[in-house]
Amino acid sequence: MHYDPLPEFRRCPATGRWVIFAPERARRPITLAHTEPHHRDRVNPGTVCPFCEGNEKLAAGEVYAVRPDGSAKDSPGWQLRVIPNKFPALRSEMTSTLPMLDPFFEARPGFGAHEVVVPCREHEPNPANLSLDQYAELLVAYRERIRAFSADALWHYAQVFQNVGAEAGASLAHMHAQIIALPMVPDAVQAEWDFAKTYHGERGHCVYCDLIAKERAARSRIIRETEHFIAICPFAPRFAYEFWVMPRYHASHFEITGDAALNELAGLFLDLLAALDKVLDEPAYNAFLHTSPLRAKLNPHFHWHWEVIPRTARAAGFEWGSGCFLNAVPPEKAAYELRQRLTSNLQLS
Amino acid sequence: MHYDPLPEFRRCPATGRWVIFAPERARRPITLAHTEPHHRDRVNPGTVCPFCEGNEKLAAGEVYAVRPDGSAKDSPGWQLRVIPNKFPALRSEMTSTLPMLDPFFEARPGFGAHEVVVPCREHEPNPANLSLDQYAELLVAYRERIRAFSADALWHYAQVFQNVGAEAGASLAHMHAQIIALPMVPDAVQAEWDFAKTYHGERGHCVYCDLIAKERAARSRIIRETEHFIAICPFAPRFAYEFWVMPRYHASHFEITGDAALNELAGLFLDLLAALDKVLDEPAYNAFLHTSPLRAKLNPHFHWHWEVIPRTARAAGFEWGSGCFLNAVPPEKAAYELRQRLTSNLQLS
Repeated sequence: MHYDPLPEFRRCPATGRWVIFAPERARRPITLAHTEPHHRDRVNPGTVCPFCEGNEKLAAGEVYAVRPDGSAKDSPGWQLRVIPNKFPALRSEMTSTLPMLDPFFEARPGFGAHEVVVPCREHEPNPANLSLDQYAELLVAYRERIRAFSADALWHYAQVFQNVGAEAGASLAHMHAQIIALPMVPDAVQAEWDFAKTYHGERGHCVYCDLIAKERAARSRIIRETEHFIAICPFAPRFAYEFWVMPRYHASHFEITGDAALNELAGLFLDLLAALDKVLDEPAYNAFLHTSPLRAKLNPHFHWHWEVIPRTARAAGFEWGSGCFLNAVPPEKAAYELRQRLTSNLQLS
Repeated sequence: MHYDPLPEFRRCPATGRWVIFAPERARRPITLAHTEPHHRDRVNPGTVCPFCEGNEKLAAGEVYAVRPDGSAKDSPGWQLRVIPNKFPALRSEMTSTLPMLDPFFEARPGFGAHEVVVPCREHEPNPANLSLDQYAELLVAYRERIRAFSADALWHYAQVFQNVGAEAGASLAHMHAQIIALPMVPDAVQAEWDFAKTYHGERGHCVYCDLIAKERAARSRIIRETEHFIAICPFAPRFAYEFWVMPRYHASHFEITGDAALNELAGLFLDLLAALDKVLDEPAYNAFLHTSPLRAKLNPHFHWHWEVIPRTARAAGFEWGSGCFLNAVPPEKAAYELRQRLTSNLQLS
């Protein structure tokens, strides 16, 4: 039997959900040994890390880098590299159209870009161990890649995310983030956008701005505030110790954030991740950015934010079946514990 | 600091999602050792199984059982027991009301029932090893418990689910299923219901009935058909080797299914699970039932079905962030492989 090896978007006719067939993902090497549940893992012995300095040829094709002026692409000496994912979820060339199918079964070619951001040339698995400069360059790289995708009308969303630890889906230990650019707005972002737009239509406020005001009044779920950012454990988190980081003042698009603000955000992230490591003993986690779709104008209803979800409990049959998450740790407790483990003093303004 | 130990429903003000705080879940013993990723696990040595015959006192309070006439509740000799979960996600007594909160932060007392169904008195971890009679009694127990919850206007949904293997969230090896009865219709069921109702409103057909007709015409995603049921790999599955089992003729409520049909369904399930075990070498998986809400009348738009999701790949940052799942295995390939490993002959009618 022949199966098309090309990636494909497919929409479930019974639920409306989109999924991506990514046949190449099955071929990626898994170099992270699964040692203990929930915690981070050691790299399998005998494997060569494609993200370490000196191995640039194993992960070539730089699309963006922070490196000395005049140094060649894919050569050593860099501080940060963005490269195409070698086992991409989607294809960035429009190679073919799909055969005409019954319109009941909606499918589209798996057109998209899949990039990897490597923020350090040393084999450092822990994002919390990056320097302030490195973390700031990482955030700048996200911004610059979102801007680059935004400049091309083909792209509708750029999903930035990090998987830390095998339990969180990472296959390589060396700290890296990923960006998948899509020709459509994905379901979860669309749902948040629709919710926020409806709220704004009914009340004339941004729901995230209202949330920040309410959280600042309640105080119990705030982990830290800085001049321009706030980190909270959300009122109804799906995961224990889940936290969100948002600008305190309304901002619909991450990609217009200035360097100084990204530097401040980098410092906040490093403190939060170090506290998370202490409270949960270096848990596996995912982090992802929700920002306005690329084709959306500046707007008063959507407010960009990062969500960080530790993977200490597994979603099981109840969660997948009902869509309702069981969480054993109230966010007030999580925020309290994270606050206690912050290295610097709490800066509640 | 004091945290309320009672369970609670909370609605996220920024997304509308409901979650359940289940503080007692943190206290449950985890007796499944995590040996290898994705596969089933051996029980930790030195633990006593509360679900084995003779240990009824460790899991007492039978609410339903198949046992010899005249035998006492919670005594040995049974074939199937339904007992309250010792570490329930929710409380079945309305003990307290919540303090008045800001209505922006919507919360409700964690009222619900959480039951465990044990379909065999021997320490059998694999559902595929149940006898036909045992699997049929299991399905009858689901039906009878849903009917019991349905008789009380407090309950709006009864989520039936199975977690098989630690990777799928199981904490005990002895084969068991769970039922959580809720005073509301959970988000995922409501979303499927709304989608199906809209489809029916627009086209005058049940979307699942249309799906079955389309799948029977295409044939490539059908695993097996019996007289009254059909098993397919859905067109856009979130997980590799995900399959659904549905009645071939329209049926909105699982709980009105007759004994003969449940017997047929049990045989189909046993064959499917055995094939899944062969194709994926005994994977961890979840199974759950989607049926009409308890307060809904018989209706022409919703069609009950089981979804079985093998847990061979982990949802990572992209999936949690975008809501869009990456799947490396097309359902046509999955259905083909599962068909090849069915023990009896393929019965495509």
